[in-house]
Amino acid sequence: MHKHIFEAMKFKKDSLLLLDQTKLPFEEVWLELSNADMIIEAIQNLRVRGAPAIGICGAFALYLSIYNDNKLLVDEISLKREANRIKGSRPTAINLSWGVDKVVDFVGKCINLNEIFDFVYSLYLQEIEINEKIAINGAKVLPEGSILTHCNTGSLAAPGIGTALGVIRKMFQMRKLNLVYVSETRPLLQGARLTVFELERDAIPYKLIVDSASGMLMRNFMVDAVIVGADRIAANGDTANKIGTFMHALAANFYNVPFYVAAPMSTIDFSIATGEEIPIEERDKAEVIRCMSSLTCKDDTSALNYAFDITPAKFIKAIITENGVYSPNEILTLLD
Amino acid sequence: MHKHIFEAMKFKKDSLLLLDQTKLPFEEVWLELSNADMIIEAIQNLRVRGAPAIGICGAFALYLSIYNDNKLLVDEISLKREANRIKGSRPTAINLSWGVDKVVDFVGKCINLNEIFDFVYSLYLQEIEINEKIAINGAKVLPEGSILTHCNTGSLAAPGIGTALGVIRKMFQMRKLNLVYVSETRPLLQGARLTVFELERDAIPYKLIVDSASGMLMRNFMVDAVIVGADRIAANGDTANKIGTFMHALAANFYNVPFYVAAPMSTIDFSIATGEEIPIEERDKAEVIRCMSSLTCKDDTSALNYAFDITPAKFIKAIITENGVYSPNEILTLLD
Repeated sequence: MHKHIFEAMKFKKDSLLLLDQTKLPFEEVWLELSNADMIIEAIQNLRVRGAPAIGICGAFALYLSIYNDNKLLVDEISLKREANRIKGSRPTAINLSWGVDKVVDFVGKCINLNEIFDFVYSLYLQEIEINEKIAINGAKVLPEGSILTHCNTGSLAAPGIGTALGVIRKMFQMRKLNLVYVSETRPLLQGARLTVFELERDAIPYKLIVDSASGMLMRNFMVDAVIVGADRIAANGDTANKIGTFMHALAANFYNVPFYVAAPMSTIDFSIATGEEIPIEERDKAEVIRCMSSLTCKDDTSALNYAFDITPAKFIKAIITENGVYSPNEILTLLD
Repeated sequence: MHKHIFEAMKFKKDSLLLLDQTKLPFEEVWLELSNADMIIEAIQNLRVRGAPAIGICGAFALYLSIYNDNKLLVDEISLKREANRIKGSRPTAINLSWGVDKVVDFVGKCINLNEIFDFVYSLYLQEIEINEKIAINGAKVLPEGSILTHCNTGSLAAPGIGTALGVIRKMFQMRKLNLVYVSETRPLLQGARLTVFELERDAIPYKLIVDSASGMLMRNFMVDAVIVGADRIAANGDTANKIGTFMHALAANFYNVPFYVAAPMSTIDFSIATGEEIPIEERDKAEVIRCMSSLTCKDDTSALNYAFDITPAKFIKAIITENGVYSPNEILTLLD
């Protein structure tokens, strides 16, 4: 296997071992999750996050449900009900549905529990290979220099070296990388907590910024490209990603900085024509009125918390997948 | 005097009483500052902030220096040296220079300490009247509906009812206001801590959002106008304001939401042709790696902290002053 990959999940026959991302970077706490409910809780509370990672966890959750209740192997209605319950735990990311549906399909052809385990594990290994290919494809097309990224798209978000952060890692190996600007990613600070953690570990040079500073950096010619991941890509190339992504894209467009999306093909939802149709998750207002453990205002403060936004295709220079690098208007042609 | 104005500073012959804004909204702590050094410390550490408010505090700091050392009344070189020292405490806001220079000019015509005190106090009272006029001018031109604002521009930032928040208050009185979206304003959370505090006090309906969510709100037709303050306005209308302002302007431009700047005439710096020449303050990285009292990442994390950004004139629909409402390209004509 690949060396130096930081693995945030480990698979046992009767449980998933998961590094609790809500505790990072201050504590490395491993959870042992022995049923789908526990994995759903982990997904909803962002103990695991990142579209590819929750896709695999969703698949494993369904495996564990079957492990714990063998009748799901033969009762198709109950299996699909359980699948839908898992798929509903986070609405925006398409990979969750993708992973769960892969297991539903496989179960239709198989009634051997060990083979289902092996199948989910093979999805995980495939994901590692996919991210390696995305990284290679991306590192070839991104310009040399300093790169801005948003949220966390590394080994904590996607098995292997990550998606957008995988590209950045590969650029660093190729000596094409000067510096990574990490936007902290309010409200849950995946940039500050998780991306900084991964970059520190790999000794890749970075600077942390507040989310709203990216325009100022671009004005000062400090950013050569932006690369982000995706939670769902519509057939026209419109992309849903962590709240704040669209603002970076607007600034990049204004200052002629190329803006890239890195994601596996499984993140593309061909059933959705444009970003208008992508469901956007609204999360608890408590995430906004708190920052880490501090209240930023009194706890009865009124707040609104959209977790994602949509970046229109016209602001995206290219979508980098394991199969190749495509302009957003080529996405639909990949359906064949 | 105007009723219901929340006063964040009070003037005594030998000291300035200042509400420490770094402690809000959880504690209301009044400081007694008896010399310029203490006021400079308060300005640098944002115990007082907002361009008009620090303009008045700067003026009072120079008065206190004279009060504490009468020779400044007759030694012009020492007076100017002291003035420059105070003016250097925060580089971006022009009002600080404006306030201090007003006192320097006045001292040139006067050697009576009481008259200097009265002069500074008259600047304060003038500022209250100016903000009232800005509010009236702004409330007339802004569209009815929901308004997004950034940072704090209320009574804590400007004597009286504030600049942009004064306009919002006046709209509320005129029943033109539906809701205020308050962007929290990382890193120091002036929106979450201070604007929410002022809106709660006036029972004006609001919702707090993370800074990077404004584009998503506009996409959903939830914002009818944006109004912000200014730390300095160049002769071409380019405007420096709290980091994040430019990103809101980009989103507003993309979604055809009108974007307004509210500021006293003293915020316009006719000596500066464009925003390129406005000095942008870079502050301690500790502000970025912390949020309130919480670290967001390990304390040796590398970070960058520009405190302001520049919104190009072309994104600004109008600049609202006490003298009237101007399109940015009319600013230069006001020089006469």
